Amino acid sequence: MENLADAPAAGPAQDPAALNPAGLSPAAARALFRDGLVTPTAGWSAGYAQANLIIVPKAQAFDVLLFAQRNPKSCPILGVLDAGETAGPLLAGGDIRTDVPRYTVYEDGVKVADPTDISGYWRDDLVTFIVGCSFTFEAALQEGGIRIAHIDQGTNVPMYRTSVRCEPAGAMAGPLVVSMRPVPASQVADAVRITSRYPAVHGAPVHVGNPAEIGITDLGRPDFGEPVRIADGYVPVFWACGVTPQAAVMESKPALAIGHAPGHMLITDARDSSYLVP
Amino acid sequence: MENLADAPAAGPAQDPAALNPAGLSPAAARALFRDGLVTPTAGWSAGYAQANLIIVPKAQAFDVLLFAQRNPKSCPILGVLDAGETAGPLLAGGDIRTDVPRYTVYEDGVKVADPTDISGYWRDDLVTFIVGCSFTFEAALQEGGIRIAHIDQGTNVPMYRTSVRCEPAGAMAGPLVVSMRPVPASQVADAVRITSRYPAVHGAPVHVGNPAEIGITDLGRPDFGEPVRIADGYVPVFWACGVTPQAAVMESKPALAIGHAPGHMLITDARDSSYLVP
Repeated sequence: MENLADAPAAGPAQDPAALNPAGLSPAAARALFRDGLVTPTAGWSAGYAQANLIIVPKAQAFDVLLFAQRNPKSCPILGVLDAGETAGPLLAGGDIRTDVPRYTVYEDGVKVADPTDISGYWRDDLVTFIVGCSFTFEAALQEGGIRIAHIDQGTNVPMYRTSVRCEPAGAMAGPLVVSMRPVPASQVADAVRITSRYPAVHGAPVHVGNPAEIGITDLGRPDFGEPVRIADGYVPVFWACGVTPQAAVMESKPALAIGHAPGHMLITDARDSSYLVP
Repeated sequence: MENLADAPAAGPAQDPAALNPAGLSPAAARALFRDGLVTPTAGWSAGYAQANLIIVPKAQAFDVLLFAQRNPKSCPILGVLDAGETAGPLLAGGDIRTDVPRYTVYEDGVKVADPTDISGYWRDDLVTFIVGCSFTFEAALQEGGIRIAHIDQGTNVPMYRTSVRCEPAGAMAGPLVVSMRPVPASQVADAVRITSRYPAVHGAPVHVGNPAEIGITDLGRPDFGEPVRIADGYVPVFWACGVTPQAAVMESKPALAIGHAPGHMLITDARDSSYLVP
């Protein structure tokens, strides 16, 4: 199996593996992305919470916040930047327009670009929602002896649209999006137990096994991210995913909305442990 | 000590004690309030979650929802009724304008009335926020062997404005309001442990002992509710309170806002246990 940690000296200077990404501070990681580095962020800045983004005009902000309130497993809000604000306590000294490796821009619900900088799209009425990400509990899973396939295989986590509908809010409506991690049958209970202690970052799985039941016909063809190999005896375990609000944006079609590119997260200054409940 | 359970036959038919309030279904309790019964609701409809209300015009709704998101200990949102809606899954078959024993109406941040029915104030742009209430964990405290002074003494829970400022959101800013329960020193740890399992209804205390440190100069003069006797050896324990958004409304002065009267809660159809975390 490939593993980022196995090949630290193989790449050029821009190769993320050469940077020991797990050891970078959030500010250092954001600075690299600001300077143009593009990479999925799983495993980066160990111990710090990563986050999804959904950025909409103020006119749509109530619907988005209410959608998040009504769908807390998929849309746990960690912070909100007021209209026009580009920094905040979760990204001290940062700039939300440049500090994420890649973004996705939607106009009228259609993806029109995936830039590495959204300064050209910025408007003073844009409200930024910073949404918890399941990467936050991956270190806890690893500490619990559960390997993370997409980290071991050096790929982006696979994500799927499901047939489960979210609770709508105003114009916002759409399918639940899930991330998937294969877990040995003997460790599924541990995975549930460990992740349920992180409700602010998706918490316990929403579904264990039987992907067809939630409308996933082929695990090898994720809607976002990349497929992972699933070893014999492993069960696909599904967690609610912070790409969910982007799927709702595609349906609700605001004039403008901006998200992160799936798997390419905002690395925040918040410690993973700050989202742990007793 | 007085106790509601000790005097079931003493009052007239309208005396809440005669109704065995703990045994009433939420729908039956709401029907009594709709018909004009006015009483604090601590101890009513055992096993069902009670809730605070804050109702504002749609134009203020984003600020209120963001204030709640930023102050989750004092403003845990259990549900939101869209503009003009008067019922929802938390009050099946009910009517938010009549089903609370008493309301508080604010105009320009000033309390102008405390009616038992707000039908005359209703507008189609009013958005209702249903906010968790610490009455929800009182049964769990009692099961844990911790007596609840205001239930034993047959009074409304004492609530205090503190010198702690909430995180502001738009126009919404104000002090943290707390409820207080005296707890024997030997049981404070149990009270913390038990209530921390209910994060959706204020969770663990925000302060234990030393009321002066949070700006409370006289426990005998609460800002809302009624004082309770504090026996020797008991420590005042403070929990964030869902009256907090009303205090912020008084500061932010929207043209119209409506809350419940402190201690006179909405009794919802949700089970207390649905807010329990592992």
